[in-house]
Amino acid sequence: MKIKYNLLKKEKNSEARLGTIETNYGTYETPMFMPVGTRATVKGLSPEELYNINAGIILANTYHLWLRPGEDLIFKAGGLHKFMNYQGPILTDSGGFQVFSLARKKDISEEGVKFKSHIDGTKLFLTPEKSIEIQNKLDSDIAMSFDECIPYPADYDYVKSSVLRTLRWAKRGKAVFNNSNQSLFGIVQGGEYEDLRKYCAEELVKMDFDGYSVGGTSVGEDKETMYKMVSYSTKYLPENKVRYLMGVGDPIDIIEGVIRGIDIFDCVLPTRIARHANAFTKYGKINLKNAKYKEDFTPLEETCDCYACKNFTKAYIRHLVTLDEMLGSRLLSIHNLRFLVRLTEDLRECIKNDNIFEYKQEFIKNYYGNKDYLQKKTKGQDE
Amino acid sequence: MKIKYNLLKKEKNSEARLGTIETNYGTYETPMFMPVGTRATVKGLSPEELYNINAGIILANTYHLWLRPGEDLIFKAGGLHKFMNYQGPILTDSGGFQVFSLARKKDISEEGVKFKSHIDGTKLFLTPEKSIEIQNKLDSDIAMSFDECIPYPADYDYVKSSVLRTLRWAKRGKAVFNNSNQSLFGIVQGGEYEDLRKYCAEELVKMDFDGYSVGGTSVGEDKETMYKMVSYSTKYLPENKVRYLMGVGDPIDIIEGVIRGIDIFDCVLPTRIARHANAFTKYGKINLKNAKYKEDFTPLEETCDCYACKNFTKAYIRHLVTLDEMLGSRLLSIHNLRFLVRLTEDLRECIKNDNIFEYKQEFIKNYYGNKDYLQKKTKGQDE
Repeated sequence: MKIKYNLLKKEKNSEARLGTIETNYGTYETPMFMPVGTRATVKGLSPEELYNINAGIILANTYHLWLRPGEDLIFKAGGLHKFMNYQGPILTDSGGFQVFSLARKKDISEEGVKFKSHIDGTKLFLTPEKSIEIQNKLDSDIAMSFDECIPYPADYDYVKSSVLRTLRWAKRGKAVFNNSNQSLFGIVQGGEYEDLRKYCAEELVKMDFDGYSVGGTSVGEDKETMYKMVSYSTKYLPENKVRYLMGVGDPIDIIEGVIRGIDIFDCVLPTRIARHANAFTKYGKINLKNAKYKEDFTPLEETCDCYACKNFTKAYIRHLVTLDEMLGSRLLSIHNLRFLVRLTEDLRECIKNDNIFEYKQEFIKNYYGNKDYLQKKTKGQDE
Repeated sequence: MKIKYNLLKKEKNSEARLGTIETNYGTYETPMFMPVGTRATVKGLSPEELYNINAGIILANTYHLWLRPGEDLIFKAGGLHKFMNYQGPILTDSGGFQVFSLARKKDISEEGVKFKSHIDGTKLFLTPEKSIEIQNKLDSDIAMSFDECIPYPADYDYVKSSVLRTLRWAKRGKAVFNNSNQSLFGIVQGGEYEDLRKYCAEELVKMDFDGYSVGGTSVGEDKETMYKMVSYSTKYLPENKVRYLMGVGDPIDIIEGVIRGIDIFDCVLPTRIARHANAFTKYGKINLKNAKYKEDFTPLEETCDCYACKNFTKAYIRHLVTLDEMLGSRLLSIHNLRFLVRLTEDLRECIKNDNIFEYKQEFIKNYYGNKDYLQKKTKGQDE
């Protein structure tokens, strides 16, 4: 089936939306955060651990799976769900972001992008049609259109021609799309220019996608610019379709995204920082290698309900990460993912209670203290 | 409480024993295999995964924990069980094997062993008293006496004087032992010399330990010599105490050990080979990186009941291990541990049915085919 978005309630003071998405694998509440399973595995975690985190949809990367093990192998395995044994919904990206961020020597033409594999330099060619064909075979629940990811800053004329190309590519992808069990999203580009975002959104809506995502953020712009890009996009998207902000996982960006009408987020941040011994907490990120946790026999967060917090102390996790023991990054990954999922659960409550701005103020006070986080430059991430 | 061994039945045609061990954390059947949790974690696995493997006792390494994080920290955490949150019995070794195999520049005297840390070269001094003091603080359920681990081959006179020292060390350790919740085992040494094994066993039995282990095997001798060493030891041990063969985890060695009256085994082998993409199967070890598993959509073993086999295919595990994804070695570790635990479960059935030799023949036929495994040299292992 195609996914179906149901808008349940809007927050009184913002664009924040409470909703549900019906998928092939059950119905999930939004706003939601999607863990990233780059190569058909959320690094270190089992499917059951993802269910226990209350994850909902997870993301897998088309580019990485295309290269290894290849979409044909996954097709033979019966699709991505069967291959990785994940009985929840899966979204695949288009490969666009990875091509532009990871690949060597890019050659962009109207037809597609020629580039060299980041693994072994093999020459590859990704087109809108090829991206869709791969995703159709992967048999994810949601596929993304292939778009051009442009850097920031970029001048108006370049962004304009890029938006036009992204729209032509979206159309070409949609034309060859061939999986009745899968939904297809269009991606709004347009940099920081409202008229281009508006044009892109409206043209995509005319093509009638199953959902829309906001692309081209987290590419080096500051946070205020990013939030504007989001507003300029969601403003022109229909209320009855789901909206996904790609690659965003900083807690405050999730809150600001929800305030601007975003329903879904994904990011490698929680699992990546976990592998570097970092944990999200209400009072900001902490690094478990810090000596002050050596004899700290309390959980990462007293109030957290995740497996790591219910069973292990900071002292033990510090011991594990200091010695590079696998269980350490596994426990931190579970906690960090659950932290962001809990954040979206909180935000859903805020929408019900019409108090999202109070929540945001309180969150910022605890998490950032006096730090001026708004000037911080964003940065796209891939594993 | 001290552990209590109950002998339930002996196999008709061998020395194999079916029994139970009562511990602070429940009663477990023997023969059993103990997973190794070197640094207070069985690499990559959670306590729940160990319970699901039906592991029973696990082993932690005194030497490694002494160095990092230190026994005082674990004592402050409330002991090893609380520190690592393992609600099953734990055995700690004495550090003797690691001192002799890992440490740099050893200087062995009657008092103990002076050596340099394998991590940073720090000068350290381990004595029988210190080993026991550390283990008392770790608060494992079973502690081991500090012994001298000698190489193979070694001449009779050297082995004799070493046995005498090991006995003096066992006595000194027992004298300072101070944890009423912990049991203490003596270690039978004596190389391949039956009279020395006999003497060592009998002298230890006079000291009345809570259990006995067979040491000094897996140090380079061939398998037939190892089996003799085991026979020469168990023969002189009392029936009402448990017997533990240290560092042995090759499937055939477990079978041969059980036939010679061993109740407990441990080895890093199943988790270590897992991290190198290997899986135990009925038909021998397989390496998942082998191209022939690329499109093999069957489990590691059709008849295995472990989490990995019930949920994932060889093709998926191959994908994971090829890309060094953590979940790969986690799944293989689960399978390999469960494989050895299942082997001990089978052996317990054999003891009930008095058919252990038939089982052994069938196992060898499947596992080794025509390979002459008996000439293979053993080798001690540490993580």
